[in-house]
Amino acid sequence: MSHFKHHVFFCTNSRESGEQCCEQCNATEIRAYAKTKIKSLGLSGEGKVRINSAGCLDRCEHGPVLVVYPEETWYRYLDREDIDEIIEQHLINGRVVERLLISNE
Amino acid sequence: MSHFKHHVFFCTNSRESGEQCCEQCNATEIRAYAKTKIKSLGLSGEGKVRINSAGCLDRCEHGPVLVVYPEETWYRYLDREDIDEIIEQHLINGRVVERLLISNE
Repeated sequence: MSHFKHHVFFCTNSRESGEQCCEQCNATEIRAYAKTKIKSLGLSGEGKVRINSAGCLDRCEHGPVLVVYPEETWYRYLDREDIDEIIEQHLINGRVVERLLISNE
Repeated sequence: MSHFKHHVFFCTNSRESGEQCCEQCNATEIRAYAKTKIKSLGLSGEGKVRINSAGCLDRCEHGPVLVVYPEETWYRYLDREDIDEIIEQHLINGRVVERLLISNE
Protein backbone atom coordinates (compact mmCIF):
# COMPACT_ATOMS: atom_id res chain seq x y z
CA MET A 1 0.00 0.00 0.00
CA SER A 2 1.23 3.49 -0.87
CA HIS A 3 1.34 6.12 1.81
CA PHE A 4 -0.03 8.52 -0.79
CA LYS A 5 -2.03 7.09 -3.67
CA HIS A 6 -0.71 9.91 -5.85
CA HIS A 7 2.28 11.97 -4.76
CA VAL A 8 2.59 15.00 -7.01
CA PHE A 9 5.75 17.10 -7.24
CA PHE A 10 5.71 20.49 -8.95
CA CYS A 11 9.07 21.88 -9.94
CA THR A 12 9.10 25.39 -8.46
CA ASN A 13 12.73 26.12 -9.12
CA SER A 14 14.10 29.51 -10.13
CA ARG A 15 17.62 30.58 -10.92
CA GLU A 16 19.28 33.86 -10.14
CA SER A 17 20.90 33.82 -13.57
CA GLY A 18 17.48 34.39 -15.11
CA GLU A 19 17.77 31.14 -17.06
CA GLN A 20 14.40 29.68 -18.06
CA CYS A 21 12.88 27.87 -15.07
CA CYS A 22 9.48 26.47 -14.15
CA GLU A 23 8.99 29.27 -11.63
CA GLN A 24 8.94 31.84 -14.45
CA CYS A 25 5.73 30.16 -15.57
CA ASN A 26 4.08 30.72 -12.18
CA ALA A 27 4.76 27.22 -10.91
CA THR A 28 4.41 28.19 -7.24
CA GLU A 29 1.07 29.88 -7.86
CA ILE A 30 -0.27 26.99 -9.92
CA ARG A 31 0.94 24.46 -7.39
CA ALA A 32 -0.92 26.41 -4.68
CA TYR A 33 -4.03 26.31 -6.85
CA ALA A 34 -3.69 22.52 -7.20
CA LYS A 35 -3.16 22.06 -3.47
CA THR A 36 -6.18 24.16 -2.56
CA LYS A 37 -8.37 22.40 -5.09
CA ILE A 38 -7.32 18.92 -3.95
CA LYS A 39 -8.05 19.90 -0.36
CA SER A 40 -11.43 21.39 -1.22
CA LEU A 41 -12.37 18.17 -3.01
CA GLY A 42 -11.51 16.16 0.13
CA LEU A 43 -8.75 14.32 -1.73
CA SER A 44 -5.73 15.30 0.37
CA GLY A 45 -4.05 13.15 2.98
CA GLU A 46 -2.82 9.64 3.68
CA GLY A 47 -3.98 7.07 1.17
CA LYS A 48 -5.06 9.90 -1.09
CA VAL A 49 -3.22 12.77 -2.78
CA ARG A 50 -0.27 14.94 -1.72
CA ILE A 51 0.71 18.04 -3.70
CA ASN A 52 4.35 18.99 -3.10
CA SER A 53 6.74 21.61 -4.31
CA ALA A 54 10.20 20.47 -5.35
CA GLY A 55 13.50 21.86 -6.52
CA CYS A 56 14.61 21.53 -10.14
CA LEU A 57 13.38 18.22 -11.56
CA ASP A 58 15.94 18.53 -14.36
CA ARG A 59 13.46 18.40 -17.20
CA CYS A 60 13.73 22.11 -17.90
CA GLU A 61 13.32 21.72 -21.65
CA HIS A 62 9.72 20.60 -21.08
CA GLY A 63 8.84 23.06 -18.31
CA PRO A 64 6.81 23.85 -16.44
CA VAL A 65 6.64 20.24 -15.31
CA LEU A 66 5.26 18.03 -12.57
CA VAL A 67 5.61 14.34 -11.85
CA VAL A 68 3.11 11.97 -10.24
CA TYR A 69 4.52 9.05 -8.24
CA PRO A 70 4.55 6.12 -7.64
CA GLU A 71 3.20 5.59 -11.15
CA GLU A 72 5.82 8.03 -12.47
CA THR A 73 3.79 10.07 -14.90
CA TRP A 74 5.45 13.26 -16.11
CA TYR A 75 3.36 16.19 -17.29
CA ARG A 76 3.91 19.63 -18.70
CA TYR A 77 1.18 22.17 -18.03
CA LEU A 78 0.48 25.77 -18.92
CA ASP A 79 -2.44 26.93 -16.84
CA ARG A 80 -5.13 26.10 -14.31
CA GLU A 81 -7.24 24.39 -16.96
CA ASP A 82 -4.44 21.88 -17.52
CA ILE A 83 -4.24 21.27 -13.78
CA ASP A 84 -8.01 20.80 -13.60
CA GLU A 85 -7.71 18.16 -16.29
CA ILE A 86 -4.87 16.35 -14.52
CA ILE A 87 -6.85 16.38 -11.26
CA GLU A 88 -10.08 15.16 -12.81
CA GLN A 89 -8.72 12.63 -15.26
CA HIS A 90 -5.59 11.33 -13.57
CA LEU A 91 -5.88 11.93 -9.84
CA ILE A 92 -9.58 11.18 -9.56
CA ASN A 93 -10.19 8.74 -12.42
CA GLY A 94 -6.76 7.19 -12.88
CA ARG A 95 -6.49 7.97 -16.60
CA VAL A 96 -3.35 9.49 -18.05
CA VAL A 97 -3.83 12.88 -19.74
CA GLU A 98 -2.13 12.02 -23.01
CA ARG A 99 -1.99 15.54 -24.41
CA LEU A 100 0.09 16.80 -21.47
CA LEU A 101 2.31 13.75 -21.13
CA ILE A 102 6.10 13.92 -21.29
CA SER A 103 7.88 10.74 -22.27
CA ASN A 104 9.79 9.07 -19.42
CA GLU A 105 12.78 8.61 -21.68
CA MET B 1 11.54 2.69 -18.31
CA SER B 2 11.90 5.26 -15.56
CA HIS B 3 13.33 8.66 -16.39
CA PHE B 4 15.27 8.38 -13.13
CA LYS B 5 15.99 4.93 -11.75
CA HIS B 6 15.78 6.37 -8.26
CA HIS B 7 14.21 9.78 -7.66
CA VAL B 8 14.98 10.89 -4.12
CA PHE B 9 13.09 13.69 -2.38
CA PHE B 10 14.40 15.19 0.85
CA CYS B 11 11.91 17.17 2.89
CA THR B 12 13.67 20.50 3.51
CA ASN B 13 10.69 22.29 4.95
CA SER B 14 10.86 24.79 7.79
CA ARG B 15 8.11 26.71 9.53
CA GLU B 16 8.24 30.23 10.86
CA SER B 17 6.31 29.10 13.91
CA GLY B 18 9.36 27.15 15.02
CA GLU B 19 7.38 23.92 14.95
CA GLN B 20 9.57 20.82 14.55
CA CYS B 21 10.53 20.44 10.87
CA CYS B 22 13.03 18.42 8.90
CA GLU B 23 15.05 21.55 8.21
CA GLN B 24 15.85 21.87 11.93
CA CYS B 25 17.78 18.63 11.52
CA ASN B 26 19.97 20.11 8.75
CA ALA B 27 17.97 18.56 5.93
CA THR B 28 19.23 21.06 3.33
CA GLU B 29 22.85 20.45 4.28
CA ILE B 30 22.45 16.67 4.28
CA ARG B 31 20.59 16.74 0.99
CA ALA B 32 23.49 18.77 -0.49
CA TYR B 33 25.89 16.14 0.85
CA ALA B 34 23.86 13.38 -0.84
CA LYS B 35 23.69 15.28 -4.12
CA THR B 36 27.43 15.92 -4.18
CA LYS B 37 28.23 12.34 -3.31
CA ILE B 38 25.90 10.90 -5.97
CA LYS B 39 27.50 13.20 -8.53
CA SER B 40 31.02 12.29 -7.50
CA LEU B 41 30.15 8.60 -7.85
CA GLY B 42 28.94 9.21 -11.42
CA LEU B 43 25.42 8.14 -10.46
CA SER B 44 23.49 11.31 -11.28
CA GLY B 45 21.40 11.91 -14.37
CA GLU B 46 18.85 10.31 -16.66
CA GLY B 47 18.38 6.61 -16.09
CA LYS B 48 20.27 6.96 -12.84
CA VAL B 49 19.71 8.96 -9.65
CA ARG B 50 18.21 12.40 -8.98
CA ILE B 51 18.45 13.99 -5.54
CA ASN B 52 15.75 16.63 -5.03
CA SER B 53 14.64 18.93 -2.28
CA ALA B 54 10.93 19.11 -1.55
CA GLY B 55 8.48 20.95 0.63
CA CYS B 56 6.84 19.28 3.62
CA LEU B 57 6.25 15.60 2.89
CA ASP B 58 3.74 15.47 5.74
CA ARG B 59 5.49 12.76 7.69
CA CYS B 60 6.81 15.18 10.29
CA GLU B 61 6.47 12.73 13.16
CA HIS B 62 9.22 10.61 11.60
CA GLY B 63 11.49 13.45 10.48
CA PRO B 64 13.90 14.11 9.05
CA VAL B 65 12.59 12.05 6.15
CA LEU B 66 13.20 11.30 2.51
CA VAL B 67 11.35 9.17 -0.02
CA VAL B 68 12.71 7.22 -2.97
CA TYR B 69 10.44 6.81 -6.00
CA PRO B 70 9.18 5.05 -8.05
CA GLU B 71 9.64 2.18 -5.58
CA GLU B 72 8.25 4.41 -2.82
CA THR B 73 10.61 3.68 0.01
CA TRP B 74 10.41 6.08 2.95
CA TYR B 75 13.41 6.62 5.20
CA ARG B 76 14.26 8.58 8.29
CA TYR B 77 17.90 9.54 8.69
CA LEU B 78 20.00 11.33 11.25
CA ASP B 79 23.38 11.99 9.74
CA ARG B 80 25.74 11.52 6.82
CA GLU B 81 26.46 7.94 7.82
CA ASP B 82 22.79 7.10 7.34
CA ILE B 83 22.88 8.75 3.92
CA ASP B 84 26.02 6.82 3.00
CA GLU B 85 24.21 3.61 3.89
CA ILE B 86 21.13 4.53 1.83
CA ILE B 87 23.34 5.40 -1.14
CA GLU B 88 25.43 2.27 -0.95
CA GLN B 89 22.76 -0.26 -0.06
CA HIS B 90 19.65 1.10 -1.73
CA LEU B 91 20.69 3.40 -4.58
CA ILE B 92 23.67 1.34 -5.71
CA ASN B 93 22.71 -2.19 -4.70
CA GLY B 94 18.92 -2.04 -4.66
CA ARG B 95 18.53 -3.34 -1.11
CA VAL B 96 16.23 -1.61 1.36
CA VAL B 97 17.95 -0.28 4.49
CA GLU B 98 15.61 -1.88 7.00
CA ARG B 99 16.87 -0.04 10.06
CA LEU B 100 15.98 3.36 8.56
CA LEU B 101 12.72 2.34 6.96
CA ILE B 102 9.42 4.07 7.71
CA SER B 103 6.28 2.05 7.08
CA ASN B 104 4.23 3.24 4.08
CA GLU B 105 1.09 3.02 6.16
